[in-house]
Amino acid sequence: QCAVKSLFLLVSLQNCTSTRSLLSVFEEDSGMLTDYTNKLLQSMQRVFGAQSEMGLATEQLSQQLLEYEKKNFALGKGDEEVITTLQSFAKTVGELNSLHSELANQMADSMVFPLIQFREKDLTACSYYLILMSLLSSRAEHEAAMVKYSRLPKKKENEKFVCTEEVAYTRRKQHQASLQYYCALNALQYRKRVAMLEPMLGYTQAQISFFKKGIELVSKKMDNFLSSVSNMTQR
Amino acid sequence: QCAVKSLFLLVSLQNCTSTRSLLSVFEEDSGMLTDYTNKLLQSMQRVFGAQSEMGLATEQLSQQLLEYEKKNFALGKGDEEVITTLQSFAKTVGELNSLHSELANQMADSMVFPLIQFREKDLTACSYYLILMSLLSSRAEHEAAMVKYSRLPKKKENEKFVCTEEVAYTRRKQHQASLQYYCALNALQYRKRVAMLEPMLGYTQAQISFFKKGIELVSKKMDNFLSSVSNMTQR
Repeated sequence: QCAVKSLFLLVSLQNCTSTRSLLSVFEEDSGMLTDYTNKLLQSMQRVFGAQSEMGLATEQLSQQLLEYEKKNFALGKGDEEVITTLQSFAKTVGELNSLHSELANQMADSMVFPLIQFREKDLTACSYYLILMSLLSSRAEHEAAMVKYSRLPKKKENEKFVCTEEVAYTRRKQHQASLQYYCALNALQYRKRVAMLEPMLGYTQAQISFFKKGIELVSKKMDNFLSSVSNMTQR
Repeated sequence: QCAVKSLFLLVSLQNCTSTRSLLSVFEEDSGMLTDYTNKLLQSMQRVFGAQSEMGLATEQLSQQLLEYEKKNFALGKGDEEVITTLQSFAKTVGELNSLHSELANQMADSMVFPLIQFREKDLTACSYYLILMSLLSSRAEHEAAMVKYSRLPKKKENEKFVCTEEVAYTRRKQHQASLQYYCALNALQYRKRVAMLEPMLGYTQAQISFFKKGIELVSKKMDNFLSSVSNMTQR
């Protein structure tokens, strides 16, 4: 499809005005897309950051619960029970920590990474060819000036020859870069749909898997434990 | 129980050495408990902070997904589908955001708040009576010096009377403060168990409720939606 569209663009190169207006629409669109992608990426990285922090925080909490035992309180009447209960909680929090860390990793892999790749690969390709075209364009202008200068009567024939050969080379390069640019802009349009939907698909699937594992974790024998703890705090 | 223990302490006031050694054990214990409570509270506040941030982050993500539509991309071939899909994701993320915020609130109410209350009420009571005792003790020393001074032959009788009355008042206050201090230290021992277990009970119950609501949220018609999105990204 990319090739077909490029051919269409190549044909329309004949008509400079319509090519330019189509090009400007493409450019405006990809500029907006870059802007939107950056903002979406920021939001997703914030969610990922919060999830990572949750992993670290639960890890710290789990360790802190185990610290109680090491305090060796002298007046430890009934402390045995508190110690073993806190150990159970530490184990649960530790398991939750694994789930949180796993979720954070999945968010990184299936939400943040694909969008970064889209930005680095597809959006950057467009910018790259745009810069290349602008470089080639100024070189072409320079060479055109050289050709004009070399046509002055006092110049040697071989200088004229070199100049026109260079001009032809640059024009070929320019044409090639234009094609690559159109192709990249075009690919961007086709990649856009996947780029926008894939990260959210990854996020939602990771979240579902997190809930399922969470339910599995807390439902096994947790009710009895919690009601016994609840009794302990009401004694 | 507090009263019984206080009586025991009152009796043991007769024997100063054993009272002091018991007191120092109580004090050391409550010092360690204060230290441990502060660290545990820090860990819990970190977990709460991460959960709050997750609420804010998902809210931002949900809004960012809705922004796509407003961009009005010119080359919007197939954009209708992307827009409606992102709207569905925004709705899901918005619902997840409610769950995250609810969990953060529950963590604040049933995990962080009870431990803060324990620190403010039970631990602070001990420190308060300790400071009061130290103030009364220096006042007693001062008054004892005054009595000694007033016993010098040249002093008037009414000055002597005032001094001894003040001394008696301070001693009564001192005794009262000691009792209140022992009672507070004692209450601390009895409150400790609840204070250590209640927040973790709250945390775990909130987490379970979060998983249950999460499963309910994602399981309703989510599978069909996700597989259709998955198809869209593979087209």
